[in-house]
Amino acid sequence: MQIQELSTPALTVDLDTLERNLEAMAALCRTQGVGLRPHTKTHKTPELARLQMERGAVGLTVAKVGEAEVMTLAGLDKILVAYPIYGAEKLKRLAALARRLEILVSLDAEATAVELSSAAASQSATIGVLVEFDSGFHRCGIAPGPEAVRLAKKIQKLPGLAFRGLMTYFGQVWGTSDQRRLEADQAAQEVAKALDAFEEARLPVEIVSGGSTPSAEFAGRVKGLTEIRPGTYVYNDLNTYYQGACRLEDCATRVVTTVVSTAVPGHAIIDAGSKTLSSDPLRAGPSSGCGLVVEAPDAPLIKLNEEHGYLDITQSTHKFHVGEVLTVIPNHVCTCVNMHDEAFLVRGGEVVGCWRVAARGKIR
Amino acid sequence: MQIQELSTPALTVDLDTLERNLEAMAALCRTQGVGLRPHTKTHKTPELARLQMERGAVGLTVAKVGEAEVMTLAGLDKILVAYPIYGAEKLKRLAALARRLEILVSLDAEATAVELSSAAASQSATIGVLVEFDSGFHRCGIAPGPEAVRLAKKIQKLPGLAFRGLMTYFGQVWGTSDQRRLEADQAAQEVAKALDAFEEARLPVEIVSGGSTPSAEFAGRVKGLTEIRPGTYVYNDLNTYYQGACRLEDCATRVVTTVVSTAVPGHAIIDAGSKTLSSDPLRAGPSSGCGLVVEAPDAPLIKLNEEHGYLDITQSTHKFHVGEVLTVIPNHVCTCVNMHDEAFLVRGGEVVGCWRVAARGKIR
Repeated sequence: MQIQELSTPALTVDLDTLERNLEAMAALCRTQGVGLRPHTKTHKTPELARLQMERGAVGLTVAKVGEAEVMTLAGLDKILVAYPIYGAEKLKRLAALARRLEILVSLDAEATAVELSSAAASQSATIGVLVEFDSGFHRCGIAPGPEAVRLAKKIQKLPGLAFRGLMTYFGQVWGTSDQRRLEADQAAQEVAKALDAFEEARLPVEIVSGGSTPSAEFAGRVKGLTEIRPGTYVYNDLNTYYQGACRLEDCATRVVTTVVSTAVPGHAIIDAGSKTLSSDPLRAGPSSGCGLVVEAPDAPLIKLNEEHGYLDITQSTHKFHVGEVLTVIPNHVCTCVNMHDEAFLVRGGEVVGCWRVAARGKIR
Repeated sequence: MQIQELSTPALTVDLDTLERNLEAMAALCRTQGVGLRPHTKTHKTPELARLQMERGAVGLTVAKVGEAEVMTLAGLDKILVAYPIYGAEKLKRLAALARRLEILVSLDAEATAVELSSAAASQSATIGVLVEFDSGFHRCGIAPGPEAVRLAKKIQKLPGLAFRGLMTYFGQVWGTSDQRRLEADQAAQEVAKALDAFEEARLPVEIVSGGSTPSAEFAGRVKGLTEIRPGTYVYNDLNTYYQGACRLEDCATRVVTTVVSTAVPGHAIIDAGSKTLSSDPLRAGPSSGCGLVVEAPDAPLIKLNEEHGYLDITQSTHKFHVGEVLTVIPNHVCTCVNMHDEAFLVRGGEVVGCWRVAARGKIR
């Protein structure tokens, strides 16, 4: 079956592009001397996580216990839950995993550590802990410095926990290559602050985890970083492209869609809306639009309803007709993939397989 | 179990509120003399569709063949697919349903009708067709007038199809009560144009379907309307509330969430992000914010990442702490519900059951 014959809307992954992306990030990490622990939130698919491990990843990253469970059920291990998990039910499940596998968790509060310790100890499990610090994104994470050392020392005393190192997220590293280099260098100063405080306290730090896709090429400039957690790079998307962090041909994911109405003058309606593409806005480049139509880039996808996408065709040279099949590159691939139960695998335009997005919707 | 004890994030439905909403819309339709064919895209849950049918709905509305299949598998029938379905695989499944049940489909193009006819005829099924016309929302639908009549006449000649009437969507009826009344009256003029053309052509129109939740109270002002398709009213949301089309206590759906970080000054981070609430923006009232925290309305939910919500706590009198459980009313309940596999049922603060969101993710 050719890609255009898929029942629409459908999420597709071009395998040649994906494999090229996997190789490129693995090489980038080797060159810079940092480990790669890819964030699986982008693809939520054990088959793809396995490809990442086969290419030398030091482990996997997830945000949710449910995502970790899906990966471990598929035989994958060495999982970092890069999220301050709180709540007895989730921590019980996490401790159950840690009895069998190497589990790391990040956190930034003593209350979270106490809960985690209680869950681990009650199942005689040991959970590795990374103290999250804020290197400039201002989301989670304590300030780098003595406060982080104090939390690490408390973790060392709590049963069932093993302090393993530090974690930070470089979400602020965003924009043009120059902007990203500058922001990476600023983040590097915060990482240095954190490491200095631990060195002063003579507290060894085994793991220093940072990163994201847009910051990956600058990881080598951050002294002390041992591993990074990019997610988006496997598929890429318009946000990555418009930052200059990938080429358009590196976008492996397309949503195949059908024109379902041309009745209202000035636009064509496609059967991919916010329940297919997600309503995440474009955050780079032109900073508007809901996705790029590959076959008609001069017809901007200006608006989404739940099941309708609006193409502004007033400036387009393309002639649209009902029943026509188009393909759309999403703004943000992580939230787009999360709308789909399956990803159809494509090679040379032919559909050659299908992955279940097995960790989709694992919100707990 | 109390609602605060749920593992978070979790979607909850307050049953008392839901039942009140169901009764209110059923009464509103009776009073105005229009049938109610609720759009199930909001809840995607057969159990709730059954409650709607038990309260006198004339049938159900869906947007996707997959949603129709879920509803019919649960024993529900009389389904309007209010979407111009195009594509052989989907139409084959739709025709299979139409062999057993009363299926209606809306469309606005001859090409769509021809495909539908071919699918229906090849399975000796009959599918009822509503011609969609544009009453002011400018999404799908041909202009009301002779063109709609021409399409209806073509449908009458196509095997496997039965022309049953007209459909339009009042998406433009939005805003304050005064704005909505005005827009409903303008839509009524378009409906009249459409009906005049059919009367002139002596083509009987059995069904005239319109509506939405914000326009429901004005349905009686639209002459000739036989039924409406509101969806959101079962749960309501901030968009409905800020239009004055429901009270805050009529919002039946809450996302239960936990504060997971207060480390960065000025905000608290909750474990409900765009993969839990959806990233649909607020489109009414203050027109910013990502949801309302019931326990701390003075702490706006200013930003979402995939698994993080940012509460701006700088102006709040509430003292936030890690581990605290909060509840959030979503901006747009239809896209929020679609992120969840389950909805937990609550009565008087106690969790009394759970529905599977069985049609979630049925994008085809």
